[in-house]
Amino acid sequence: MERLDNRITRLFGIRYPIISGGMVWCSGAKLAAAVSNAGGLGLIGAGSLKPDLLREHIVKCRELTKEPFGVNVPLMSPYSAELMEVVIREKVPVVFTSAGNPKLWTDRLHENGIKVAHVVSSSKFALKAQQAGVDAVVAEGFEAGGHNGREETTTMVLVPSVKEVIDLPLIAAGGIATGGAMLACFALGAEGVQVGSRFAVSYESSASLEFKTLCTTLNEGDTMLSLKKISPTRLVRNRLFEQIDSAEQAGASKEELQEILGRGKAQQGIFYGDLENGELEIGQVSSIIRDIPTAAEIVERMMSEFEQEISQLRSLV
Amino acid sequence: MERLDNRITRLFGIRYPIISGGMVWCSGAKLAAAVSNAGGLGLIGAGSLKPDLLREHIVKCRELTKEPFGVNVPLMSPYSAELMEVVIREKVPVVFTSAGNPKLWTDRLHENGIKVAHVVSSSKFALKAQQAGVDAVVAEGFEAGGHNGREETTTMVLVPSVKEVIDLPLIAAGGIATGGAMLACFALGAEGVQVGSRFAVSYESSASLEFKTLCTTLNEGDTMLSLKKISPTRLVRNRLFEQIDSAEQAGASKEELQEILGRGKAQQGIFYGDLENGELEIGQVSSIIRDIPTAAEIVERMMSEFEQEISQLRSLV
Repeated sequence: MERLDNRITRLFGIRYPIISGGMVWCSGAKLAAAVSNAGGLGLIGAGSLKPDLLREHIVKCRELTKEPFGVNVPLMSPYSAELMEVVIREKVPVVFTSAGNPKLWTDRLHENGIKVAHVVSSSKFALKAQQAGVDAVVAEGFEAGGHNGREETTTMVLVPSVKEVIDLPLIAAGGIATGGAMLACFALGAEGVQVGSRFAVSYESSASLEFKTLCTTLNEGDTMLSLKKISPTRLVRNRLFEQIDSAEQAGASKEELQEILGRGKAQQGIFYGDLENGELEIGQVSSIIRDIPTAAEIVERMMSEFEQEISQLRSLV
Repeated sequence: MERLDNRITRLFGIRYPIISGGMVWCSGAKLAAAVSNAGGLGLIGAGSLKPDLLREHIVKCRELTKEPFGVNVPLMSPYSAELMEVVIREKVPVVFTSAGNPKLWTDRLHENGIKVAHVVSSSKFALKAQQAGVDAVVAEGFEAGGHNGREETTTMVLVPSVKEVIDLPLIAAGGIATGGAMLACFALGAEGVQVGSRFAVSYESSASLEFKTLCTTLNEGDTMLSLKKISPTRLVRNRLFEQIDSAEQAGASKEELQEILGRGKAQQGIFYGDLENGELEIGQVSSIIRDIPTAAEIVERMMSEFEQEISQLRSLV
């Protein structure tokens, strides 16, 4: 298919409604540009970037692609205000906000001609995002890697729940690595998908080869939602996870868990490849990820599977 | 649609690939017969039945329908062997086994001309079920109500994972209450759906009106997976849940949790309607269930939504 025409592709000016998630230590300029060049929307993940480094990634991304791309700004970042100033000054066309109040920045971003999508884990937050005036909503389910909602609602239940309360175009996230899962989300009411794990394990992802290779060997049950007393996060069950889990089972306090977790553990694990002591954030769907293709290959595969699945379903009626 | 022709409808001799789950205190003869009369496959849930009562339900079900129906036998029931003898003596056409080893009964059931499906929560168990010679596999995700797998794999991830390792017809379960979700599961590789919560909250369900009415008011996050140290079970967050949860947070042992849970709490809650002190088993998808229709109405709605969604997706390519 040359282009899929719907509200998401029209909103962002892209060909395919596939968005790469803004993943810490994975989503730099290289991955974002590759996804955008392939017809999707690449996001630079600002969660692990200081403002100056974000600016460098934006400049670099512009050199690598002429297509629209975006930046994901987690509003809980200590630098969120400065990151937003960079995004506005650099006239990035799209911003995805997450982990915070969508009212904070939406108007200011709109005044600067920037499209805004907000990531939510419940229909209550989706409604708030719509009221804040965002252009699209991302509904991310329990199966997603990294930071996650407290209600543990899965993509299968969350997407139709959000669809019921908003009119805005809806992007599904969590558990999506194939065109079949993309089509499943469309059947649930989504018009686009945000894909994390699959792009984290791509050639252009900034993650270490050690981390990517590990992810291609994970099985069901090898990631679990952890750190529920701090901020629920899906992690690979490595040595660090087991330490946290034992402490949680024994009723450890938030402070005790924070001490075990320490600082910089996501960088240590994902970026530097310390697979035992690092914080390894990846989604459940890693259990079906078995190779490290380019971002372009991922987009092509997903769109071709998507079309093939539609033909098969069509024959049912 | 008059009939959907695929491996699941052919296997069971039914018109629509919609199976009602064998839910304790909900799935008696009345519900099973209503689902079968509507063109699906109704299951009598033997988990809350002693052998004599199961026989009564089977006899009653035969009076209420001429269509095929089945019995779900949880293999961890203390009566599982006697329940199986009843099923074989009464020549029930279909048995769904769960919570145990599929090798135990499959051959014996087959020798008696009974079709066998086995419920799993992982692709590893799915492969074992296929090796045991079952006729179909049910893959049930984390969002499902009641007893659940330890690996917490969601329907969105589990269904394609199981599809990858087995050739048998696959039935998806967990989070499915609409034709849209049914189609989503088909896009993931399923050929049928097992629907629990939606039929638990139907006119013919044996659950108390108090329980059904409560379920129509639940929101996202109102059920949680609990009792992980005993046997993971999705429960409504009522007073009993909070007692269990506080104990779990404080590091309670399996024995301490068992004492809080006590006995007969599912009956107390679901059947007798003690909403605060009973064990209320229902899935996440209760958050979009807002009425108490007949089973026939549920089957009709799902099939009509299923067809409508296919037409909409077809226009995308």
